[in-house]
Amino acid sequence: MRILALDASAKAASAAVCEDEKCAALYYLNSAPVHSVTLLPMAQGALEGCGLTLKDIDLIAVSRGPGSFTGLRIAAAAAKGLMWGADKPGCGVSTLEAMAWQAAHMSGRLICCVMDARRGEVYNALFRADGSRPLRLCPDRALSVDALLEQTEEPLLLIGDGAELCAAEMTRRGREFTLAPEHIRHQNAYGVAMAALHVPEALRESTDPVYLRLSQAERERNARLEAENGGNRK
Amino acid sequence: MRILALDASAKAASAAVCEDEKCAALYYLNSAPVHSVTLLPMAQGALEGCGLTLKDIDLIAVSRGPGSFTGLRIAAAAAKGLMWGADKPGCGVSTLEAMAWQAAHMSGRLICCVMDARRGEVYNALFRADGSRPLRLCPDRALSVDALLEQTEEPLLLIGDGAELCAAEMTRRGREFTLAPEHIRHQNAYGVAMAALHVPEALRESTDPVYLRLSQAERERNARLEAENGGNRK
Repeated sequence: MRILALDASAKAASAAVCEDEKCAALYYLNSAPVHSVTLLPMAQGALEGCGLTLKDIDLIAVSRGPGSFTGLRIAAAAAKGLMWGADKPGCGVSTLEAMAWQAAHMSGRLICCVMDARRGEVYNALFRADGSRPLRLCPDRALSVDALLEQTEEPLLLIGDGAELCAAEMTRRGREFTLAPEHIRHQNAYGVAMAALHVPEALRESTDPVYLRLSQAERERNARLEAENGGNRK
Repeated sequence: MRILALDASAKAASAAVCEDEKCAALYYLNSAPVHSVTLLPMAQGALEGCGLTLKDIDLIAVSRGPGSFTGLRIAAAAAKGLMWGADKPGCGVSTLEAMAWQAAHMSGRLICCVMDARRGEVYNALFRADGSRPLRLCPDRALSVDALLEQTEEPLLLIGDGAELCAAEMTRRGREFTLAPEHIRHQNAYGVAMAALHVPEALRESTDPVYLRLSQAERERNARLEAENGGNRK
């Protein structure tokens, strides 16, 4: 199966073209976060570099979250545009699961995928590396680093842009951990393709973003409404 | 240190921009081997995606071999052009060493970097993964798979486009091995940058290609000359 995969769920963004497990192209940027400018040209470059067009693609895969609200919308909008324009099926995958694929070869390790969610929280999920794939141990969730570290005493293999945050707290507590090396620490579109490749067709998820939490705009509106209602009750 | 790294030493080709260990951009193609068409545009895309120009780069790194004769010349020519044009220093690194960086995190493992050299041989070097870097155990060399497997009884971690060739022979002999997963099995420009980053300035190598063996044209000329001389002696 030939997959075009997109990721723009955090500071890094990338596009990949895969033929089953083989990575035919990976265009990856972890620099200026202007995903709206870079994502589609990266997808185009990856396709053209392989001598392919959208017609040759069997599935559009996208990381649907958790992650940056705007980044997720950019990737979802791009994926939906490509799906509609080229009449191709799509598959959304968890950003955390896509990330876990990068460490699936570290057999037996407890993979802790963790993204900085701000406001004292991290987006997180735990997986067991079985040598060839990551086995999910819990759903994606937003929780405090404290709550995360209370879940297990086992040494963690930390992956994601929240890895250093967790590493600092684990160091403070004298706990054992491994920080994934830089080249497999961040989610990328190859992991997105691998996650999508292993989803049976009947179980493919929507490409709609999954935020896990309310957006800042929604939180502020709710706070304002609550304040107004409180004022009304006075 | 900001490094622009190039690799075109085998079927895959790639360009990366790194800031010390951080991968700011990686453009990678493992598809049609038209490196002369794709390599410089990938370097340009990687730089532009980071909002950089050649002026911002401190070092041009390139994998100098072993590998495909034509591919190595394309990468060396591109690197030399950039070095001359932008007046920047360069650093050539072993393709096999660049590849070994991808598995440096697999602590304790014996990394066997192996590229298909045709004519019954592989280009090979062995490294010990120490968790953060690969420690070289022997020089790069061209040898038969038999000769390689006689060097050690230890289970090998196989990396490179010759990995499956070795894996098949090790399976036949009932020997233990691990095939590096697809996303870290092939050399790429990030590994080239890491290898160059860890070379002290005074020890930087030339960017000239290192072939380890004579090219096909040279072999054929030598064979012709030998036949002619043989004829003369008759």
